[in-house]
Amino acid sequence: MTIEVQASPRERLLEATASLTYREGAGIGVEALCKAAGVSKKSLYQLFGSKDELLAASLERGSTSYTAALLPPADDGRSPRERILHVFEQVESQAGAPEFQGCQYLAVQIELKDQSHPGSRVAHRVKEELTGFFRAEAAEGGAGDPGLLARQLSLVFDGASARAGIRADRLAGLVRPTVVALLDTAGLR
Amino acid sequence: MTIEVQASPRERLLEATASLTYREGAGIGVEALCKAAGVSKKSLYQLFGSKDELLAASLERGSTSYTAALLPPADDGRSPRERILHVFEQVESQAGAPEFQGCQYLAVQIELKDQSHPGSRVAHRVKEELTGFFRAEAAEGGAGDPGLLARQLSLVFDGASARAGIRADRLAGLVRPTVVALLDTAGLR
Repeated sequence: MTIEVQASPRERLLEATASLTYREGAGIGVEALCKAAGVSKKSLYQLFGSKDELLAASLERGSTSYTAALLPPADDGRSPRERILHVFEQVESQAGAPEFQGCQYLAVQIELKDQSHPGSRVAHRVKEELTGFFRAEAAEGGAGDPGLLARQLSLVFDGASARAGIRADRLAGLVRPTVVALLDTAGLR
Repeated sequence: MTIEVQASPRERLLEATASLTYREGAGIGVEALCKAAGVSKKSLYQLFGSKDELLAASLERGSTSYTAALLPPADDGRSPRERILHVFEQVESQAGAPEFQGCQYLAVQIELKDQSHPGSRVAHRVKEELTGFFRAEAAEGGAGDPGLLARQLSLVFDGASARAGIRADRLAGLVRPTVVALLDTAGLR
């Protein structure tokens, strides 16, 4: 992992936490994080108070780029159907990378096994935003039950990224027909 | 956790590993496992060689009851469609339990982040058996592409149990219409 030497201790800790948590899991130790960031434990506790809060801040910091990498630009002129399919094209594309371990906001919640953990709360909110995007597009596209379609699409999103992350499926030829079947059943334009 | 006093050290270790790994994650330490099982570290290493092998043996031991709790009895006279829906009824029912943390064979692979880990290999095989069940039923039911339908159903299975495990969705009113849409699209009888 390359950390720019100009970055502040705070930035280096956030970056190291994001990378190492994704690669090795939320159980990664404080010592490993400090070592990777080149920051003392004392600084970590002064800056973030606890490892739990550092993890939450790191997930929060990554949420903008996570969402931007998945969602289409607002008002891009495409139909709700095309805008929803755009998200799943990104998942399929991301899943092709050798370092892909699935959606970090799903994985961290599975690993923490505690919905009251500060990191779980951030992750839960980030995933809710994705479901909210699906719901808004489903309503815009005239789905019979936008809430149900949003839940179905979130389920497919998490199932697809989890299975690709554990190398149970490469997703090619899988995600699009699955999503299309659900969009068609929901009557989405 | 209650461990029967009559159980052998081997059995107690397998049981403690299954329970604690599910509840707290695959990163659970050897000391915690030995304490819960009432077994010395020396005995653990004599019996299993390593914690990784203990975890793999524990996952292997649980696979029979895992599969039995999900799959319908062989040749129960029901249609492939009904037999597939049976699996998802079990998932929805299991997800209602307060201690439900999602499918343990998915979670352990996400947590280990290493497909060559002995535990990941067992988990991968157990999940492949479920996909194999879906594939056989899909073929029996005349699906246009049984392989695709099996992958879709595995994706829905993992997405549903993961989202219920992290309390992102209670699954009620979600899983059945999702599966039915995919079965209908595949032309399953």
